[in-house]
Amino acid sequence: MRSGFPTAGNIRAAHERIIPFINHTPVMTSSSFDRMFRCSMFFKCENFQKVGAFKARGATNAVRSLDSETLRKGVATHSSGNHAQALAWAAALAGTAAYIVMPSNSSPVKVEAVKGYGGRITFCEPTLLSRETTLQSVIKETGAIEIHPYNDVHIISGQATSALELIEEISALDMIIAPVGGGGLLSGTALAAFYFSPGTKVIAAEPEQADDAFRSFSKGIFIPSINPQTIADGLRTSLGSLTFPIIQKHISSIYTVSESSIIQAMKFIWERMKLIVEASSAVPFAAIMENKINIEGKRVGLILSGGNVDLDNLPW
Amino acid sequence: MRSGFPTAGNIRAAHERIIPFINHTPVMTSSSFDRMFRCSMFFKCENFQKVGAFKARGATNAVRSLDSETLRKGVATHSSGNHAQALAWAAALAGTAAYIVMPSNSSPVKVEAVKGYGGRITFCEPTLLSRETTLQSVIKETGAIEIHPYNDVHIISGQATSALELIEEISALDMIIAPVGGGGLLSGTALAAFYFSPGTKVIAAEPEQADDAFRSFSKGIFIPSINPQTIADGLRTSLGSLTFPIIQKHISSIYTVSESSIIQAMKFIWERMKLIVEASSAVPFAAIMENKINIEGKRVGLILSGGNVDLDNLPW
Repeated sequence: MRSGFPTAGNIRAAHERIIPFINHTPVMTSSSFDRMFRCSMFFKCENFQKVGAFKARGATNAVRSLDSETLRKGVATHSSGNHAQALAWAAALAGTAAYIVMPSNSSPVKVEAVKGYGGRITFCEPTLLSRETTLQSVIKETGAIEIHPYNDVHIISGQATSALELIEEISALDMIIAPVGGGGLLSGTALAAFYFSPGTKVIAAEPEQADDAFRSFSKGIFIPSINPQTIADGLRTSLGSLTFPIIQKHISSIYTVSESSIIQAMKFIWERMKLIVEASSAVPFAAIMENKINIEGKRVGLILSGGNVDLDNLPW
Repeated sequence: MRSGFPTAGNIRAAHERIIPFINHTPVMTSSSFDRMFRCSMFFKCENFQKVGAFKARGATNAVRSLDSETLRKGVATHSSGNHAQALAWAAALAGTAAYIVMPSNSSPVKVEAVKGYGGRITFCEPTLLSRETTLQSVIKETGAIEIHPYNDVHIISGQATSALELIEEISALDMIIAPVGGGGLLSGTALAAFYFSPGTKVIAAEPEQADDAFRSFSKGIFIPSINPQTIADGLRTSLGSLTFPIIQKHISSIYTVSESSIIQAMKFIWERMKLIVEASSAVPFAAIMENKINIEGKRVGLILSGGNVDLDNLPW
């Protein structure tokens, strides 16, 4: 099935399928943050996930959902980020090839990481058109199947398992705040709450400078971001045709945050919680620091989506 | 009791006493490190401890062991590091004053942290003599009791509880590696293993450039470091009259590591484990990276002693 909303059964099945391969990530708390913001915050630490990001969940679920004949031919995607690493890792673990199309200007750190997980890289021009046509030619040549980074039921069901674990571990959450880029994590989180903890609202946080989800959600029509510039590099993508309707139906609100808030929130989490999180991960906490969300006295879950950072290029 | 080796009963009692106040810190693993070094490593994360370091354990135990009359007058120490913060925090939580003597060249970050926990600071010249005489005059004036950072049975018993928790959670450890500065953590770790897991060896790791424990241990006589220069600022102190005999009796070996190994190990832990640890914490892992310890096929505990780092001054 490649269209339609993932069901509760899809999400449960995804979790069963990926449990042997992924980390059951810890939930961390900070008594100083709780005092400071007068609420109870529960941070779901996907920075401790395999390959350093929640993307390992969706990629593993997508790869492990393929029939053996399809799997044998390999999987393919175009990505310069965590999805590329996650897919390469999940494919290697399943004994198949991952063909990754990466723009020629990808950071050497990320290229090395994909290679390290055994991904077979084809470089292309740094345009969407070149990425897509290069991917199509790789697929034609290899017979590999494309695994989209977010607009895919298996990917969304996999990403939903982070919120599922959070809900199972922490009772009576008033809300969960997740970052939004392409919407795979956010739509999965929304569905997990809807199915398994209906009293828990799901709220999205997004960089002001990549606010396609905010604008699309407000206007009720899909408005993509054109070449957005934000430090939260995981959130530069726009929503997809599958994630947008889920978000429209199941999200309470979307708040945007400034670049300086994102950097401040990231540094604050490093300093106080001793957790390495990437800028995208800090966006929900940035919304709290900007006092955008009424959290007083509430039980608040936050998804820390990943921890892949270039330690030689920190934003402060 | 202020002399003699802490007993098994002292350590158990310390744990009971401090449990309501401290964090039961998690034990983290890394499958990539385990593959790389062909062993099973268990990292006890004291970077997630209150005030960001294991020192909260000893300070809480020392403060909570005082009778109410003594406690009322407050506690005092000279320290520019984590002990100062820990004692200020533990005293405030117990409703009493902490008088902290800090050298005038202490980093503003650390001064602010002590103030943040409510510590009452007296500045002195940056010499041991000035620190000690200033502390004595503060004590004379206030009637506060001195809490030594490591040469104290209650402090050692408190620090021992980190290894106690590790041993209780992870069975059949072949060894535990701890860093050594003044020896409070190391001697506590050694005693916890001796009493509660006699099959577990305790090994120390120390900066080459502050190798008083290595030299004292090798020669069998106490040889202090004179003004040692190492990035591992928590390990610049020399052993004490109480910690040295415990270490002589209960430690298997002490290995020294270079400054560049410490920095590399610290960065490697940040990158792969997504944990913020301070340089002192990385010293045991640096000994593993230098291939100093035979760990192949072994179950190895490592104490990550703390995570207080100036994010604006990273050593790489």
